[in-house]
Order: sequence, then structure tokens, then C-alpha cells
Amino acid sequence: MSSKSARKEILALFHQRGDDFVSGAQISRALGVSRTAIWKQIEALRKLGYDIEAVTSRGYRLRATPDTLLPGAIQAGLQTTLIGRDIVYLESTDSTNQHAYTLGESGAVEGTTVIADFQSGGKGRLGRRWCSPAGVNFYGSILVRPVIPSYCAPRLTFVSAVAVAEAIQASSGLPARVKWPNDVLIGGRKVAGLLNEMSAETERIHFVVFGIGVNLNMDAEQFPPDLRYPATSLRIELGRSVSRVAFARELLQQLDHWYRLYLQDGIAPVLARWQELFDLMDQQVEIETPQGPLRGVVAGLDEDGALLLRLPSGARERILAGDVRPLAGKE
Amino acid sequence: MSSKSARKEILALFHQRGDDFVSGAQISRALGVSRTAIWKQIEALRKLGYDIEAVTSRGYRLRATPDTLLPGAIQAGLQTTLIGRDIVYLESTDSTNQHAYTLGESGAVEGTTVIADFQSGGKGRLGRRWCSPAGVNFYGSILVRPVIPSYCAPRLTFVSAVAVAEAIQASSGLPARVKWPNDVLIGGRKVAGLLNEMSAETERIHFVVFGIGVNLNMDAEQFPPDLRYPATSLRIELGRSVSRVAFARELLQQLDHWYRLYLQDGIAPVLARWQELFDLMDQQVEIETPQGPLRGVVAGLDEDGALLLRLPSGARERILAGDVRPLAGKE
Repeated sequence: MSSKSARKEILALFHQRGDDFVSGAQISRALGVSRTAIWKQIEALRKLGYDIEAVTSRGYRLRATPDTLLPGAIQAGLQTTLIGRDIVYLESTDSTNQHAYTLGESGAVEGTTVIADFQSGGKGRLGRRWCSPAGVNFYGSILVRPVIPSYCAPRLTFVSAVAVAEAIQASSGLPARVKWPNDVLIGGRKVAGLLNEMSAETERIHFVVFGIGVNLNMDAEQFPPDLRYPATSLRIELGRSVSRVAFARELLQQLDHWYRLYLQDGIAPVLARWQELFDLMDQQVEIETPQGPLRGVVAGLDEDGALLLRLPSGARERILAGDVRPLAGKE
Repeated sequence: MSSKSARKEILALFHQRGDDFVSGAQISRALGVSRTAIWKQIEALRKLGYDIEAVTSRGYRLRATPDTLLPGAIQAGLQTTLIGRDIVYLESTDSTNQHAYTLGESGAVEGTTVIADFQSGGKGRLGRRWCSPAGVNFYGSILVRPVIPSYCAPRLTFVSAVAVAEAIQASSGLPARVKWPNDVLIGGRKVAGLLNEMSAETERIHFVVFGIGVNLNMDAEQFPPDLRYPATSLRIELGRSVSRVAFARELLQQLDHWYRLYLQDGIAPVLARWQELFDLMDQQVEIETPQGPLRGVVAGLDEDGALLLRLPSGARERILAGDVRPLAGKE
């Protein structure tokens, strides 16, 4: 057994025990390694920031987990079928999407997840940058291999948007809302960004990388001054920090749920939930399209994820891409 | 000036002259290098298979070009704006698409073209193999970077299908026809296969690789016995070999024309031409869809490239993917 998997097993045992002690002999039996080896791994875990109490004749007890997004910490108690079975943690990388894309090209399994503490070149939509300071947020990229033609790929944007909004609501109680076609907002301010990238041929997808950045414990002064849209973080909204590890675990579970639901039942249940999380239903909006601005009332989404707009003439327009701006007045 | 670009310039000079001689002094002046250097490059060209006549006091004359798909040979007289400005020739590769994709990731310019004499792992649609013997056919991959969202990518299938059919007709006079959604046929037999691959995010394409394989001078016994569809080559249809270099040049020109037309005027003129090249318009067909077989009469294409099928009930169905089989009887 490698040191890494030994530590993972020890953390899993601590997790099972909760606040109780687990003896060195028990750990030794469970892992099939010597007590001296166990002691070495306990020391290694302490260096990684785990607060582990040791009491003679009682054993070890986990008092606190570091809020570092280590695979073992996230995977302890993780209940997923596909997502996050393999987690790669990087203290620093150019872009988790880039790293996951490269893994995808070399055949990494579905659900492989790349998480970084810091991104030097975090990618946003349309070649923009995603502000990625160290130690405070979640930056992750999850590789999936759905057996669908490439024209279905835009649907996956709705899968990750719903998963992120649900994870924010579940872990903070804050009313997260989705923005068409992607991004997640709280009170009209951007709290998460989504950038899905794919490698595909016309009739099938090789793989998709769900790129997800969520502002968790970032302070107001950490945002760059030139943001295109107003932004926020869970910490700013709540007035306190949140656990990054707990958030990451919740997010992977939500993504596992919504992605598997999509594979099983198609995009309809995902779009139904997305529309509940969408603030602009039945609202007057203006959409900046490649053909110019268009005004109308939002009438929903179709099965391709296109926005349906009811024009003043009564005609319905199907919008596949564009920037949506709410106008005053609900219909 | 590198040896390679010197040879390219010399070939361009020969091409301008046609059957006339060009003196060593003229070449020397045009290239700004010594006559000894010219002589060295003439020798190098002869080794590559160029038949160059040398006559004292008259100079050099190109009698015959080898039918090797060398960049200089294809580029001599090539009239394109975007496609084939950079050509990479490989005697052997696993897959030209793979090579072009890797070039795309490292920032190669739009129009970069990878051509191989032999592919050890030639890719067909849906993970199938593309039979790629050496010395007889065309295997090429062309990198483009259209500024369009990824849901438009399937349209590019029609761009390359029309270009390939036109190139076959122009260089052989044979009535090439298109198959929905891709591939090119002569008399119902497959003569060319298309495999477009892309790297994209939801709202924009990073790049697309047009993968094109055309059976030019392959003999009947060179086809594998287990082909899914009947296949043919230009040589089998014509009863004589065709020039691979001339075909490659024609193909790059057609692709340049249709791709630029798409960028300028959208997909409509491409789809209009595609429909003229499509044998199954107004025909009774059965389509194998993921939801089961569907029968009806082909009523055309919509702007997304979906096949429009008129069902016996009179309803119109939009088919995005599937295998089409003609049934007896035109409506």
C-alpha cells in the first residue's frame, strides 16, 4: 500500500468514527501495516494540516481537517458513482481545464477531477480570465465522456449550472440563481463561472471538461477593479467563511446526480430545474445577438437549451447565443 | 534562404515558365543565391523525383513532377487565400487528424494542412478505421479557426463534403454525390470519407480539423474484405490513374472557396449546393435513429444541416443524426 492510499484509508477510518478515538491496533489491522508505519502516516497527515489528537491507551482522534482541497479530505464521505473517483490536486497550475483536457487526451477515466488551490491563467468564457487567488476559492475541472453527438454538448452547460447552484444553496442556504446560458448569481452578482470545453467529432464527443470556478471565501478587495459584471463570494454574502472541502464534496455530489440524471432521462428534468432557478422567466429583456439587439419576453427554454423569446409582434424567436439584460417590468 | 524555400521558389519559377527553359543566371538573380547553390537544389529536387532537364547555355526545364504530395509541388500554382499556405508533408503518421489537432493546440495558423502518404491508424467516423495504404490515395487534415459558437460546428461537415465532391468532379469528371450527413459517393460507392474534429467551448470554437480521405488510385484488391459499405476509387471508376498532386491542389482550392463562402455568406449557399449533389431529395428513405427506424420522404435540409423528413402522417420530422437508407420509389 502506498503512503498516499494509507493516508486516505486512515482518513476514511477517522471519518467513520466521528468524534470517537480509533486505536493504533485497529488502524494497523484495517490497513494491514505496522503500527510504526501508521505513526509515520499520522505525522504526515499532521504536516498536511490535519489536527490529530493522540492519547495513550485510547489511540487517535481527528479534531479538525485542514481546509486544503486534498483528495483524501474530499473523498472521505463522498457519495458519488461517477464523479470524483479520481481527484488530482494541484497547489498551482495554469488552468485546471487545461490540465483536465490533457488528461482527457491521454485517456483518463470519466469523472476524473482536477482541483487547484491557485490558477496562474484561470480561463473564463470567450478567452476572458478567471480571477483565481490562492487559498480561498474552488477551481475545479471534471472530465466526462457522454456518448452523445456533439450538437448535444451545449446541453451540458445546464447540467453544470444546476449542479453549482444546488451546491451553493445546499452548503450556504443562499438563493443561487442561474444566468442564461451559464454562470451562477446571488442577488444579481456573479458567484460562479462555468466554462465547458470539449474534444469532439461531429457525431460523437470524445470528452467534455466541466470547468467550474466558485468564489467561496474571497474578500471584496480581492476582486480585480475592472470586472465586467458585479461579483460576490459566499463569504461576502454570509459574513463568515465556508469550508472549501465540504463545498467541493457537495459540488461533486450534485454534479454526479444531475449528470447521471441527464444520461438516464435526457435534458428535460435538468432544464425544468434550471428554469426554476432562472430569474428572468416571463420578464422583459433585451438580448444582444450577433444580428443586433432584440427585445421581448422570456418564454422559456427549448430542448436544445435555446432561449425562447416572445417578440412584441407575437412571434417566437429561438435564441442560441447572446447576452441577456433585464428591462424594467414583468409582463 | 533555407534550402526548402529555395526549392519552393525554383519550382514556382518552373511553373511560371511551363515548357520553356529558365537559365541558371535567371534563377540565381530571382533567388539572390549563387549558381552553385542553385545547382545543389536542382540535384535535391531530382532526388525527390522531379525530372529536370539541364541543357548547357539554355538552362533548366521541368519535364515531370513526382506524384508525391510534397508541399512545393502542391503549392506551385495553388490559388488559395487561407487553405494550404502552410503544408506539412509526412511520409507516414498515425493519423493526419491527430497531427493537425496537436498543431492546432500549439497555435498553428488557420489553413495549416497536414498531408501523409500513409496512415498507420487512419481514423474513420465513430472510432472506425480508415484504410490508408501508401502511395495511392489522399489523406489530409486542414486546420481552420472559424469565429462561430460550437453549435454551428456540424455545418462545417457540409462545407468539406461539397468541396470534396466538387474536387472529384473537377479533376475526374465523375458524378460525385454526397451522403447525409457526410461522405462522398460515386454510383452509390464510397470514394471519400470526412471526419471533422474540433476543440471548442460552448460559445466558441478553438479550432476544427477537416479530415479528408479520398480513394484516388487504390485498386479493388487493396480494400479490406470487411468494409461496411461498398467502396471505390477514381482509378477504378476511370480505368486510369489520376495525379495525386493535381487532386490535392484542386481540393485545397475548393475547400478554400467553400469555406470562405461560408464565412462570408453563411451556410445557405453551401447547403444549396449540397442539396444539388444529394441523390435522395424527394426519395422514400428509412432512417435509423437513436429512437428507432423512421420512414418518410426527404424534404430537404434546414439551416442547421438537419435532414427534414415528411412522415406518412404529413408531419415533418427534423433528423439530426442517423443512417439513411433509400427505399424503392420516388414520390
